[in-house]
Amino acid sequence: MLYIVGLGLGDERDITLRGLDAVKKCEKVYIEAYTSLLSFGISTDGLSTLEKLYGKPVILADREMVEEKADNILSEAHGSDVAFLVVGDPFGATTHTDLVVRAKKLGVDVKVVHNASVMNAIGICGLQLYRYGETVSIPFFTETWRPDSFYEKIQRNRKLGLHTLCLLDIRVKEPSLESLCRGRKQYEPPSYMTINTAIEQLLEIEEKHGESAYSEDTECVGFARLGSEDQMIVAGTMRQLLTVDFGKPLHCLVIVGNTHPVEDEMLEFYKI
Amino acid sequence: MLYIVGLGLGDERDITLRGLDAVKKCEKVYIEAYTSLLSFGISTDGLSTLEKLYGKPVILADREMVEEKADNILSEAHGSDVAFLVVGDPFGATTHTDLVVRAKKLGVDVKVVHNASVMNAIGICGLQLYRYGETVSIPFFTETWRPDSFYEKIQRNRKLGLHTLCLLDIRVKEPSLESLCRGRKQYEPPSYMTINTAIEQLLEIEEKHGESAYSEDTECVGFARLGSEDQMIVAGTMRQLLTVDFGKPLHCLVIVGNTHPVEDEMLEFYKI
Repeated sequence: MLYIVGLGLGDERDITLRGLDAVKKCEKVYIEAYTSLLSFGISTDGLSTLEKLYGKPVILADREMVEEKADNILSEAHGSDVAFLVVGDPFGATTHTDLVVRAKKLGVDVKVVHNASVMNAIGICGLQLYRYGETVSIPFFTETWRPDSFYEKIQRNRKLGLHTLCLLDIRVKEPSLESLCRGRKQYEPPSYMTINTAIEQLLEIEEKHGESAYSEDTECVGFARLGSEDQMIVAGTMRQLLTVDFGKPLHCLVIVGNTHPVEDEMLEFYKI
Repeated sequence: MLYIVGLGLGDERDITLRGLDAVKKCEKVYIEAYTSLLSFGISTDGLSTLEKLYGKPVILADREMVEEKADNILSEAHGSDVAFLVVGDPFGATTHTDLVVRAKKLGVDVKVVHNASVMNAIGICGLQLYRYGETVSIPFFTETWRPDSFYEKIQRNRKLGLHTLCLLDIRVKEPSLESLCRGRKQYEPPSYMTINTAIEQLLEIEEKHGESAYSEDTECVGFARLGSEDQMIVAGTMRQLLTVDFGKPLHCLVIVGNTHPVEDEMLEFYKI
């Protein structure tokens, strides 16, 4: 059996009892390291907090490992219980659909243990989850690559009065361009987009298109470390949020659509 | 301190360790009974499963109680730790924003413990969460009241190729019309909309409008008891799903938009 277990958003104590039961009975425990494990107290020298809680070793699985060695993990799960831990919900912001598809094709049973993800935890700011339009991703711009497909989606959501969740780029274990040229993989240091960078990029693209999908005066909500003890949630215009230091990652941003009175009342508590 | 704790979707073991820590230190524990507690093994004669796990009594709080006696609960939370338990995530499909607003106005500190909700757990069917448009609610039709504002929203989502989550009506502790006339409150038995009823109503409204927003041949995914051990997920056309007996509540329905190949592969496993 392959257990895909969501860890939630905060730290090791955000696992559910059902998830912990599963981990405890598994012979091998992997944790995905595609995204961010920052808040789980995991350092390069070990996974101590989680391992202490689980009473067993936890194997860090980066994207490469999961893509290249998925069949190993899955064949282990054929004969025994294997856990694959995922930050947030297994099918939240990041998807693990591919691993499930491969498992099912190989006849490996899969059980999913759900948890909170950014997609529902943003509800804490008071904006109703059913009033969101399509979610967008804001990628890091480079000198030569400045994709802006998010613009049209945000514009559409705003015309309909809907809120927009912007997921901000995360670059973990990306091979450096230089190392790829040399044919020997070396990795860039991880980087996580801040709310400030996201807003700068958003405004740059608004200036380029000039269709007033949004502006410096558009109301937004910035979230840092959502679900953690030290989470930070600030509501304000893009201009105002540009001046805020949200601190450590992860960050995400909501562009506010039309609001109902109870949404306004709640947002008021988070205003600058 | 008022702790608003999400219980997740399955049963008492879907609470997080953080949530259980909070409940254990609270002097009073309320559980909201607005929606459904069916899967939590709660019967009319007690809350035994939860109380056994928590080691303390749990007070059932229906909508009336929370609306009328919120100030009592909040004043208790002024001087001591009080937990308010919510099925799913505190800000998932049902909202408890109003309670938080009242707490903040009274100067009561609030801590939220997140958990899975329908809004993110539907990801398990393989349809990407960021490819959903606005969520709709399907209310029970009566002889005289057949509201269809969902039609336009579904139509819009489908034109954009987006998936649509349909939340199905729940009627718990609704005063009966007869009892309201008599001035003495008596309650209707609880009722939960099935996927079959939802599809019948959807097709009735399509026939009324005749704009081909969707049809009997539109692909959908039906979910029953999502997140529970005995959950049921079936993909098929509206016509096909009409013939399926999904069993006990809660049900919800996703109307599929345009799909990517990996979404198709995953849906394939759930096909009739």
